Amino acid sequence: MRKRPLKVALLGCGVVGSEVARIMTTHADDLAARIGAPVELAGVAVRRPSRVRDGIDPALVTTDATALVKRGDIDVVVEVIGGIEPARTLITTAFEYGASVVSANKALLAQDGAALHAAAEEHGEDLYYEAAVAGAIPLIRPLRESLAGDKVNRVLGIVNGTTNFILDKMDSTGAGYQEALDEATALGYAEADPTADVEAFDAAAKAAILAGIAFHTRVRLDDVYREGMTEVTAADFASARAMGCTIKLLAICERAADGGSVTARVHPAMIPLTHPLASVRGAYNAVFVESDAAGQLMFYGPGAGGAPTASAVLGDLVAVCRNRLSGATGPGESAYAALPVSPMGDVVTRYHISLDVADKPGVLAQVATVFAEHGVSIDTVRQQGRQDGDGEASLVVVTHRASDASLTGTVEALRKLDTVRGVASIMRVEGE
Amino acid sequence: MRKRPLKVALLGCGVVGSEVARIMTTHADDLAARIGAPVELAGVAVRRPSRVRDGIDPALVTTDATALVKRGDIDVVVEVIGGIEPARTLITTAFEYGASVVSANKALLAQDGAALHAAAEEHGEDLYYEAAVAGAIPLIRPLRESLAGDKVNRVLGIVNGTTNFILDKMDSTGAGYQEALDEATALGYAEADPTADVEAFDAAAKAAILAGIAFHTRVRLDDVYREGMTEVTAADFASARAMGCTIKLLAICERAADGGSVTARVHPAMIPLTHPLASVRGAYNAVFVESDAAGQLMFYGPGAGGAPTASAVLGDLVAVCRNRLSGATGPGESAYAALPVSPMGDVVTRYHISLDVADKPGVLAQVATVFAEHGVSIDTVRQQGRQDGDGEASLVVVTHRASDASLTGTVEALRKLDTVRGVASIMRVEGE
Repeated sequence: MRKRPLKVALLGCGVVGSEVARIMTTHADDLAARIGAPVELAGVAVRRPSRVRDGIDPALVTTDATALVKRGDIDVVVEVIGGIEPARTLITTAFEYGASVVSANKALLAQDGAALHAAAEEHGEDLYYEAAVAGAIPLIRPLRESLAGDKVNRVLGIVNGTTNFILDKMDSTGAGYQEALDEATALGYAEADPTADVEAFDAAAKAAILAGIAFHTRVRLDDVYREGMTEVTAADFASARAMGCTIKLLAICERAADGGSVTARVHPAMIPLTHPLASVRGAYNAVFVESDAAGQLMFYGPGAGGAPTASAVLGDLVAVCRNRLSGATGPGESAYAALPVSPMGDVVTRYHISLDVADKPGVLAQVATVFAEHGVSIDTVRQQGRQDGDGEASLVVVTHRASDASLTGTVEALRKLDTVRGVASIMRVEGE
Repeated sequence: MRKRPLKVALLGCGVVGSEVARIMTTHADDLAARIGAPVELAGVAVRRPSRVRDGIDPALVTTDATALVKRGDIDVVVEVIGGIEPARTLITTAFEYGASVVSANKALLAQDGAALHAAAEEHGEDLYYEAAVAGAIPLIRPLRESLAGDKVNRVLGIVNGTTNFILDKMDSTGAGYQEALDEATALGYAEADPTADVEAFDAAAKAAILAGIAFHTRVRLDDVYREGMTEVTAADFASARAMGCTIKLLAICERAADGGSVTARVHPAMIPLTHPLASVRGAYNAVFVESDAAGQLMFYGPGAGGAPTASAVLGDLVAVCRNRLSGATGPGESAYAALPVSPMGDVVTRYHISLDVADKPGVLAQVATVFAEHGVSIDTVRQQGRQDGDGEASLVVVTHRASDASLTGTVEALRKLDTVRGVASIMRVEGE
């Protein structure tokens, strides 16, 4: 075994960072055996030194992250600060000063992944980030390595635990969105400002990362269609249940049928109760991957939390340390396919549309004509008069597969019909 | 991009090998881009050249596998022959002649993994075998790399598609074992001689491989307790259903509670219908992994078949080729922990026992006393008189957790009771 220990700089010591430090200490012998050399915590950069957790040598703690990264003897920088800056500058500085980087920073990777990968490659360093997507679930490595000889056609997953907790609660208790969010907040599953989760910014970042790796194509955050889940109602769940479905916030990355382009999107969708993703409960995450040769794979586990995220960080740390000892680097960015990313209008899927219509003869025929004119084929229609006798009825239409652009055109035309009083909800139907 | 192509020798061109060859040809450009150099099929060794599939250049085909491996210009040998010999000799010869090896051979890896790893290390070559366990499902790489910074405590999985198909059929249709096996055979899910599957030799080999990797300990095939599923009856499924369970053939690798030893076993077991493994249908595989930091992870997908297995083989091929280009090797055998493998008697779990007893007062008290004397605590008892009035009743006992040795002692003592006419079935209860 090599005598000189590998030196690790830990940037950030919050929920994840403190777990990384703890495991590095308690499992030091195992890590050394698996890496082939001891690994040593050389410094911990924090904003507030007074908050540093038990078990970390106070002498290692600094508020000057830049100086730590520039020390020159650091082998690996573990970045668990999150956010764009100062994380981005610290990571590129790490490469310049001869360190590889393990990051859990999905927002940064989704926004600047290409530039960071280029910087890593320029300096011959590794950039690993398994923890950035779906916490502890091995997903980046399977996509980037296990499926490297296969052709991935679709990635379909629940990649945000907070929103899955909320939707699961709505589904199982009949609660409304606000009530379920309040419970998630009280239990610590949702942050005080839940915007990043419920408006799907977090899931969109993960979708960009997954699509890029799955399709060997650069997918920017702006390429991802994003729709949050704040407008999902108890009535939507009742509609979903009526057609044997539940509602999940899904990240969906797809290769077009002709193989010539890809799409990435995040939105609430109905999926059949028989689909394995339908039974993913609470704050768990799960991701389906469909490929030419392997067929359908699913990866399931805790998508967040200090210890699970630390598990992913440490797996990467071991890999990067091994690479360092052997003088090699792992697989870098693979964007050779350079497929165009199509806009949302090109996405083809099924739709569940609830309309409030006038309760009189001929309405269904009118509505059906609008769908037909826009090339959207109807699968089923359910029509029901209201009990209050106000002359309105509701019409639920489930379509066959159609492009998002066709559906949008259909809905615009429906809104112009006198007999259509309102479009109560539109939801995509996936996983069939 | 490096000009000289990497040369691959394919040993075996059956269901898996022909898919490997097909994908290497059709996806040649993608593989080259992902590896960083073209990869070329340099030869295909088969037993019967007349059977070689379309799309393979006949000039590449040979019946002399040894000569192919000894050519001296082969970079990677892909072994998909299966069985112990000649596969073992061909693999060690490959290392001697400077080639790395990708294998799908679970029987060989389970029996001689240590020696093969040692040979690979001696010659500075890679030995990869993702396809040996659970077909297309990334499992070896996640355990060996993604979880390299974590402490795995348990691996619990369905790793044989044939038996899962049979058990699923019995569960869903009420069919008996033979009827379900016949259907599996007719549909091509079971081989003409199904012994390796139904007697769990196949699953035991996979359990040995998984336990070794999960616990960084050498686990030999002989260390794995093995019990087939030929004696599972429709009545067992009815009993399972009565307690909210189904029956699966499970491979279970566990670290003892004190961390000082491990066990590996394969047998049919009841698991709750609410457990994710309960809903794994048909010939699919799924593996649960429980670790200190990550918590519970599950990996799901097709566990066999030509294309899925080829996907795993090609993922390894890409990794090995990349290693070769960078002059490094991937992680080898990790057996540093060298934990003792405990015998089956030390395994602690719950049990479901059906007894045929005399239908008279005091029997339950007698039976309960025997359990207590052996230190096996009873969770629930269900007693029912038979309709035919032959003076017999059935008694179903579900225990709390107890060692296999205690349970065995209990059952031996029960058999000696005059009032116990027979032990109808004993089944372990897992996944709770």
